[in-house]
Amino acid sequence: MLNKKLIQLPLSAIALSLAASAPAWAGEPETDSSVIFNTLLFLIGGFLVMWMAAGFAMLEAGLVRSKNVADICLKNVSLFAVACIMWMLMGYNVMYEDVGGYFGTFFHIWSPDDAGVRETGYGSGSDFFFQMVFVATTASIVSGTVAERVKLVPFLLFTIVLSGVIYPIQGSWEWGGGWLNSEGFAATFGAEFSDFAGSTLVHSTGGWAALVGALILGARDGRYIDGRVRPMPGSSMPLATLGMFILWLGWFGFNGASQLAMGTVDDAVSVANIFVNTNMAAAGGAVAAFITTKLVYKKVDLTMVLNGALAGLVSITAEPLTPTPISATLIGAVGGVLVVFAVPFFDRLKIDDVVGAISVHLVCGIWGTLAVPITNGDTAFLAQLIGIISIGVFVTVTSAIVWYALKLTVGIRLTPEDEARGADISELGMEAYPEFGKGSQKF
Amino acid sequence: MLNKKLIQLPLSAIALSLAASAPAWAGEPETDSSVIFNTLLFLIGGFLVMWMAAGFAMLEAGLVRSKNVADICLKNVSLFAVACIMWMLMGYNVMYEDVGGYFGTFFHIWSPDDAGVRETGYGSGSDFFFQMVFVATTASIVSGTVAERVKLVPFLLFTIVLSGVIYPIQGSWEWGGGWLNSEGFAATFGAEFSDFAGSTLVHSTGGWAALVGALILGARDGRYIDGRVRPMPGSSMPLATLGMFILWLGWFGFNGASQLAMGTVDDAVSVANIFVNTNMAAAGGAVAAFITTKLVYKKVDLTMVLNGALAGLVSITAEPLTPTPISATLIGAVGGVLVVFAVPFFDRLKIDDVVGAISVHLVCGIWGTLAVPITNGDTAFLAQLIGIISIGVFVTVTSAIVWYALKLTVGIRLTPEDEARGADISELGMEAYPEFGKGSQKF
Amino acid sequence: MLNKKLIQLPLSAIALSLAASAPAWAGEPETDSSVIFNTLLFLIGGFLVMWMAAGFAMLEAGLVRSKNVADICLKNVSLFAVACIMWMLMGYNVMYEDVGGYFGTFFHIWSPDDAGVRETGYGSGSDFFFQMVFVATTASIVSGTVAERVKLVPFLLFTIVLSGVIYPIQGSWEWGGGWLNSEGFAATFGAEFSDFAGSTLVHSTGGWAALVGALILGARDGRYIDGRVRPMPGSSMPLATLGMFILWLGWFGFNGASQLAMGTVDDAVSVANIFVNTNMAAAGGAVAAFITTKLVYKKVDLTMVLNGALAGLVSITAEPLTPTPISATLIGAVGGVLVVFAVPFFDRLKIDDVVGAISVHLVCGIWGTLAVPITNGDTAFLAQLIGIISIGVFVTVTSAIVWYALKLTVGIRLTPEDEARGADISELGMEAYPEFGKGSQKF
Repeated sequence: MLNKKLIQLPLSAIALSLAASAPAWAGEPETDSSVIFNTLLFLIGGFLVMWMAAGFAMLEAGLVRSKNVADICLKNVSLFAVACIMWMLMGYNVMYEDVGGYFGTFFHIWSPDDAGVRETGYGSGSDFFFQMVFVATTASIVSGTVAERVKLVPFLLFTIVLSGVIYPIQGSWEWGGGWLNSEGFAATFGAEFSDFAGSTLVHSTGGWAALVGALILGARDGRYIDGRVRPMPGSSMPLATLGMFILWLGWFGFNGASQLAMGTVDDAVSVANIFVNTNMAAAGGAVAAFITTKLVYKKVDLTMVLNGALAGLVSITAEPLTPTPISATLIGAVGGVLVVFAVPFFDRLKIDDVVGAISVHLVCGIWGTLAVPITNGDTAFLAQLIGIISIGVFVTVTSAIVWYALKLTVGIRLTPEDEARGADISELGMEAYPEFGKGSQKF
Repeated sequence: MLNKKLIQLPLSAIALSLAASAPAWAGEPETDSSVIFNTLLFLIGGFLVMWMAAGFAMLEAGLVRSKNVADICLKNVSLFAVACIMWMLMGYNVMYEDVGGYFGTFFHIWSPDDAGVRETGYGSGSDFFFQMVFVATTASIVSGTVAERVKLVPFLLFTIVLSGVIYPIQGSWEWGGGWLNSEGFAATFGAEFSDFAGSTLVHSTGGWAALVGALILGARDGRYIDGRVRPMPGSSMPLATLGMFILWLGWFGFNGASQLAMGTVDDAVSVANIFVNTNMAAAGGAVAAFITTKLVYKKVDLTMVLNGALAGLVSITAEPLTPTPISATLIGAVGGVLVVFAVPFFDRLKIDDVVGAISVHLVCGIWGTLAVPITNGDTAFLAQLIGIISIGVFVTVTSAIVWYALKLTVGIRLTPEDEARGADISELGMEAYPEFGKGSQKF
Repeated sequence: MLNKKLIQLPLSAIALSLAASAPAWAGEPETDSSVIFNTLLFLIGGFLVMWMAAGFAMLEAGLVRSKNVADICLKNVSLFAVACIMWMLMGYNVMYEDVGGYFGTFFHIWSPDDAGVRETGYGSGSDFFFQMVFVATTASIVSGTVAERVKLVPFLLFTIVLSGVIYPIQGSWEWGGGWLNSEGFAATFGAEFSDFAGSTLVHSTGGWAALVGALILGARDGRYIDGRVRPMPGSSMPLATLGMFILWLGWFGFNGASQLAMGTVDDAVSVANIFVNTNMAAAGGAVAAFITTKLVYKKVDLTMVLNGALAGLVSITAEPLTPTPISATLIGAVGGVLVVFAVPFFDRLKIDDVVGAISVHLVCGIWGTLAVPITNGDTAFLAQLIGIISIGVFVTVTSAIVWYALKLTVGIRLTPEDEARGADISELGMEAYPEFGKGSQKF
């Protein structure tokens, strides 16, 4: 940097030094602007990802039946709040502080420390904020799958463990600089594990936790009868559509700010190209799901197209920088096709996923992570596979333990009567739409 | 600054000056970037706060009965437009131009003046825009409380006075550099009044105006019968939830950009930490309201949790920078508990607040302002109290005059027949949900 | 720039050069920060405009009857995805690459090229992203007008041509540096055509395409009977209100980032003033529509006020920088009045525009473009008129060809039976609100 050179050089050399280093100076903004730009990127990205909490809430409120709408709204608000508090109480430091390889520091409440801001390059709060909304995303994924039958408080107890323990431990393996991100791992498997913005760390993690929850909870009453799937259509398509659009918008922050820096031209250019690829993958996923449902079912299914767009977004999340836009479109399109087949696949297994979150976040999270080596030469298919499997096994086992422990203690499922009446009346004593819609009588 | 030094110094000293001042230069970004960063902060903060108008609209549309939904939507759109126009016509200059102590310049239409942009440090329009959306927030608070019975045009006439006169006058006392922000005040009461982003100036002001309106209007017909509160449940819980999420998002702009600058690393770091505290307070408020309603009422009430999150946000608004995140969580949590008890308290007084805005914005606005000295050593409890009382008395008296004047002239309340039919039919001649929902017949 | 001077000058002159150029340096931020700021402006503006897609979706979902809500949601999601893909496949390069006067390069897939980023001043992806969401806006305008009767797939085929051919060709004439933006044009008509953010290029283009579509499709069955307009009220006023607020928010990006740069103080100040004017025009439009409907119809019409705000926004889009805020308010107010009279005017012509998009986007797009010379002395009324007419003729003729070609081949209109049942059931085999709302039986 120019400044350091100036201080080191004898006075007589200063003018020369200035002239010589001018191009370098032109090539790198001075430190303080970089710090501000980086901090700003985290803040903008962070509020966009925070907004995704509303997206999940609307998507799920639109896709559950009206008798469960207030309950799913309450779950979404509460899980976000709980995840943030757990993140402050321990999650952040488990994931990022003194990670030895497998986890960081437990039971250390986070507070800002900006003494070294010029070394780290960003305000500590901005980084904390950005990472906080990621863990909330993971928790949001689960709520949709287990909707309409899981009890409120046990669900939130699961969220506490997920956001305070399960998510940050696996996250420390990669983003905390743990074993998946180590030289040893790279030496063994050909490259470090690579997951740019969290196809595996965020989306598959949420998906595995949701899958295990769905298995342990069982399907909604009457969902599978005589080998057939009984349709239980969502109560509001415009709310589901709104939720999808919110998520699409928020994803620009999710992937874009995962560049982690905007203080140099190179970084800013990268953020821009990530925006493009994120958008193209969503578009590809939506169009692919549109065409696929049109071909397979003759009629286009709106919920499939919504999930197709989300599938595209999850698919590009592991590597939104290196693909060309046309490649990003195709990576997203594969996700859009996958989700159209994954949804009936899980139904055939009688795994009841109310909103299709397992298909979107787990299946396409795996696809996106495996697709990284296609466009990023610094990665290895085997390394990706090992990362996916390791995290999958860890999240599955720990989630299963927590769900089972909750089942054996407080119980996790509504009684059949409560489920029939709907969670709104039975859990909250209220209706989401008290003046219209009598889902509890109709379905 | 480096540039000024250069111009003043003889040529022979320039190289030395450059070397010596290099660290200072590194420590402060050059002027132009600072101006751009500051301007950008106001613009980002401003559009986020503008978005809160949609949040209030959705929150209130969800919490009124379906027969009044179109009316409350129209009120929210119109009040925002009216408040912005009044702000341009006079409000901004009443609050900020040549404030002598108690008010600034009346009847001076605002237009941008950027000749001194390098001295002020931000584009004049960015500041105007940011302050404009604040006054709109104040006006939005009122509409929820007096919903379902106040007439449309008188409500907007009140908004005109609130945004053109009442809000900017009291605002000038503090943010305009008036008497609450003076050395004389500090000498008398131990410190200047301190209200970082407007727990008192914005939220309590809206709350007092709403309280007076509710008192003068009276309760909705049939709300209080034989000493009991008749429940009048809101028409759409997902819309109310959406509204809360929008407000939560917008609050990052509300508090974050109230730092008023992002052109130095210190300011950027402060903005980041404000984002964290704002988020934690909302989370704390939501969780506290969740737990409190669970303990007190056995069942968790979604609307209370929504208001709990908002209560947390209002509570942290007076001082979102100095608390640690855990303190911010607790400050928000106190707000969340307060709101759970304040809502039935006002009902017991037969003060009919349709959405709970008095409990959220007035009660927690007072709490947040009083809580400032807990974490900010430069403030004094007595000074806070004096500020709260002064502004409370001023807003209450002036609002009462306006509401009464309107009552005596154009009338402020729907006829009992119109109220029973609903404001949508009686005022707009339309229904919000013409194909479903017959609130006017059912309730 | 300072750096270039330094390199050219002999060493002995450097110190002097530094001193002399210090004010210039203070007046212009160094190159890299500018590039980052410019890129950031496009990204922020871009995500705000992308969000407008959700605004159109909600506005239209609220203004169609419940039997067509899922269909309009699907159209909005799909058209956005399709427009983005067409933009990447050809649209961007047709509009911007090697424009000879009338169009650029066909059949060239876009991919980022950032080698010259320091010359262009922004990341190529950020510009592509920002322009991409503009074409999507154009396509969104059409969907509202032709709702409730156009078939899904033909509508998307029209969108393909609109976003890949029609929009970029006319766009190249002006923003691509074609004939409307040429010295020859200016010499002939007194000035170059001027359309800052697209009153004509985006909004009128969408409006013309919608108008032609409405004419060729015909009105909805039963809309005009015995010379009377049969009201077909929208299904959800809060969703329509939400849509309007989303569009208002997104418009800050639409107009603000059309400054195309934020890397200097002057540009940042301009962006700020554009924000102010954009907001004031929307406020003016809303208030004007409020007052006009109150005077003309006695009762205020919410949908007119919503369209009034949008009319104000469209009106200011051709020149959001040069007006004073009070002028911007008035320009928007004229738009708000226009829309109140335009809506029944088109109905009298039996041009059935479900959401009023022709009145908002075409009529006010023309008004806004013609109003530019009022505040911007560098423009000429005749030049504006020629631009409006040229683009109008081109879009009308090409749209008519495409709509007719689709009509003669795949057919563009639902059968009367399908229209009566609603597009949701007939096209998608689903309902938007399966548990409430039976629009297909009631209307």
